[in-house]
Amino acid sequence: MQTPLSIVVVEQDRDRALQIIESLKAAGPHEVLVLAEETGLARRIQERNPDIVLIDIASPSRDILEELTLASAPQERAVAMFVDESDEGLAKAAIEAGVSAYVVDGLRPERLKPIVEAAITRFHMFQQVRAELQATKRALEERKVIDRAKGILMKAKGLDEDAAYALMRKTAMSQGRKMVDVAEAIVTAAGLLS
Amino acid sequence: MQTPLSIVVVEQDRDRALQIIESLKAAGPHEVLVLAEETGLARRIQERNPDIVLIDIASPSRDILEELTLASAPQERAVAMFVDESDEGLAKAAIEAGVSAYVVDGLRPERLKPIVEAAITRFHMFQQVRAELQATKRALEERKVIDRAKGILMKAKGLDEDAAYALMRKTAMSQGRKMVDVAEAIVTAAGLLS
Repeated sequence: MQTPLSIVVVEQDRDRALQIIESLKAAGPHEVLVLAEETGLARRIQERNPDIVLIDIASPSRDILEELTLASAPQERAVAMFVDESDEGLAKAAIEAGVSAYVVDGLRPERLKPIVEAAITRFHMFQQVRAELQATKRALEERKVIDRAKGILMKAKGLDEDAAYALMRKTAMSQGRKMVDVAEAIVTAAGLLS
Repeated sequence: MQTPLSIVVVEQDRDRALQIIESLKAAGPHEVLVLAEETGLARRIQERNPDIVLIDIASPSRDILEELTLASAPQERAVAMFVDESDEGLAKAAIEAGVSAYVVDGLRPERLKPIVEAAITRFHMFQQVRAELQATKRALEERKVIDRAKGILMKAKGLDEDAAYALMRKTAMSQGRKMVDVAEAIVTAAGLLS
């Protein structure tokens, strides 16, 4: 919380909104935007692109919970949800929908700072693992395509493995393309021509 | 929280321990073990292998926080930590150490149930992504080894790609081993013999 954060607060109650703004300002030089309307929520949050969205709902239904979470885009930023009471299963639903912090028993000033800190940390940790997973999946997929293209070249041109690989590499370099793109072109062409 | 949970509570204060046990029993037919001693904590938690560890510490230092988190093995089970107050940066340290729920302002009965629910859900979500990441990394590594072994066979025995692959597959099946093990043996042997 050293650097100023951009924070969107989703809050319908005007008094609570003011109280939250006070607490957040006391916790650091943050930019706080309060949205009271549900209309256009997703678009307005997207435009602002904050570090964290704080959602305050007294007694959420599962539908409202999922709707608000979705509008906050928890894949793209931390989302903390504050509820006064929680029915059976709602905490699970919130977490599975992507909420970084699900806080029962409302929003009290002295708890705001560690909650924001925890939610942002958790979001980054999760995002990091997800990014690593995506990169590894992509590497695996690329390897499969390059492997298939290599086999096609070996058969079609009577090359050995190294020569086929070298040919793809050379083609990629001379055309300023990535190996995997050249390999994909080869696989596609082979499918069309066979 | 439908099925009974195995819960370990790390709590030095006897009165608070009783209060926590009460709240947990009210929340479901859970098996609760309270550990007051820090001595042998890691071993005793490991023996019990609970679904979740609840750690209650009034004002944790960073060292104690990390020590208790480590002893609870947050890679293997959900860990929820309750503190009365949190210094700057402690929430971040707790989350990064693997804590599934970091709760400021103590442990109150009405909040216990959703917190346990949230912590266990979060633990499972994180574990799922981590497991998927490990499986994808392993698949990528196996593919690399099989690819190298295939190349070695092709050169050594003058086989084409399909024949080299088929030979490895046949060997694996006849020996009741995995393809990747056969491939690793080939790569190792080639390294020794070259």
